[in-house]
Amino acid sequence: MPTGPRPGHGYVHGYSGREAERLHDQARTLAGLLHRDTGYPPGSRVLEAGCGVGAQTVILARKSPGAEITSVDVSVPSLEEARERVRAGPGNVSFLQADIHSLPFRDGTFDHVFVCFVLEHLPDPVRALGCLRRVLRPEGTITVIEGDHGSAFFYPDSAAARKAIGCLIELQREKGGNALIGREIFPLLSAAGYRGVSVSPRMVYVDAGHPELVEGFTKKTFTAMVEGVRDEVLGRGLMDAAGFGQGIRDLYRTCEPDGTFCYTFFKGTGVR
Amino acid sequence: MPTGPRPGHGYVHGYSGREAERLHDQARTLAGLLHRDTGYPPGSRVLEAGCGVGAQTVILARKSPGAEITSVDVSVPSLEEARERVRAGPGNVSFLQADIHSLPFRDGTFDHVFVCFVLEHLPDPVRALGCLRRVLRPEGTITVIEGDHGSAFFYPDSAAARKAIGCLIELQREKGGNALIGREIFPLLSAAGYRGVSVSPRMVYVDAGHPELVEGFTKKTFTAMVEGVRDEVLGRGLMDAAGFGQGIRDLYRTCEPDGTFCYTFFKGTGVR
Repeated sequence: MPTGPRPGHGYVHGYSGREAERLHDQARTLAGLLHRDTGYPPGSRVLEAGCGVGAQTVILARKSPGAEITSVDVSVPSLEEARERVRAGPGNVSFLQADIHSLPFRDGTFDHVFVCFVLEHLPDPVRALGCLRRVLRPEGTITVIEGDHGSAFFYPDSAAARKAIGCLIELQREKGGNALIGREIFPLLSAAGYRGVSVSPRMVYVDAGHPELVEGFTKKTFTAMVEGVRDEVLGRGLMDAAGFGQGIRDLYRTCEPDGTFCYTFFKGTGVR
Repeated sequence: MPTGPRPGHGYVHGYSGREAERLHDQARTLAGLLHRDTGYPPGSRVLEAGCGVGAQTVILARKSPGAEITSVDVSVPSLEEARERVRAGPGNVSFLQADIHSLPFRDGTFDHVFVCFVLEHLPDPVRALGCLRRVLRPEGTITVIEGDHGSAFFYPDSAAARKAIGCLIELQREKGGNALIGREIFPLLSAAGYRGVSVSPRMVYVDAGHPELVEGFTKKTFTAMVEGVRDEVLGRGLMDAAGFGQGIRDLYRTCEPDGTFCYTFFKGTGVR
């Protein structure tokens, strides 16, 4: 799942205002699950690599009000939106336009690196992780958060819904990304040279006992994301309109009182 | 996943000594994940419904040494093995041969019911849950634990491995069971009339940082379970020997240092 548009890489979810709103819905819904153990001490220098429209930046800034956060992204419009979003925060974020693969920082500049919903869109995540490792000081840490669309399952099960999700996975693959990257965080961090790698899965489990997740996750985050690629799926002939429509209806069907929905994010940490 | 043979229902995993050993490996490996919050107060009357060969009984008895546990199963040989297994325990378990659907107890006999890896093998789990509800006192609780084979995903991904797992799901379905039942615990408990239903997913996440899980779960629990239906899969022509063998090899491949494996159990509770 994305944090914002990244021109220069294929951004499967597009650049609309509705998509930006979806990203903020997602971030609010998942803040506790993903960020409950993200916190940096006062005075520490933190790089947020690929901040997009600032959906995670707002949370980072609030949770670590004494840290000096530098948030970079390749997209100037996204950075402007992110800057606007954090204006009401503790004032501990500076923004910079930069590409992860050519960061304008000296070796060992940062105590910590944070990268969330970014590697999934990059063609060579090990290379990107290596570029981030360079700007970490020795013993500095990296935190990586990614989803995995292959982790989605639900009740009632539906072949059409699984196929619609498969189309999103395929579109992301064709653009050089990997929507199944969550399960790979351990080997990716290891291959990039990090030590002490530890990965913690974070499942979003949704049933009628959690109406805020039915709305905030199943409908507005996940199903909205799949619906968002409808035109491209139909245009490319990956599914026909009837089949894709059935898949989307079946995803909404899991939001009824007897339905359930599961999706897993992975949070990994490593040490330079 | 099973706790033991249940004659009278189709038991997809068979009745061998190797299978009994696999069940105990599984129980030991998963005890913390599944049972860390299972405990009953001294003097409480607990029914374990479908104890099989006693793989969970041993853990239940040790974790609630003051509770009076009654463990029932339809299979007399399984009960004998279970009795042998708990001999070294705190002596708080009595065994009885009985069918969940016709329990020889008066209404409201028990304070708590515990049922683990049983509903997946029953053709009508809501009916079984209703029979268990009858023997619970008002405000008594039920705890249900089930796996979900559709929750398995891994790196490297493999179509052959997914197909081999699909064969196990299909065989279990043909025998009247449901290997995808974990995701259904919330609606099943609700449909059976329980109140205050709450479901908690328990993911087993395995990477090279957890060598005990690579051995105890990916190899000895999950892959051994899939391998265990090889003869039936080939005999029924669900896959050919080459394809099934490839699937099994690909599951073992996830045990290498760069591999990962994910599987989710679901633990649900409800109140009469």
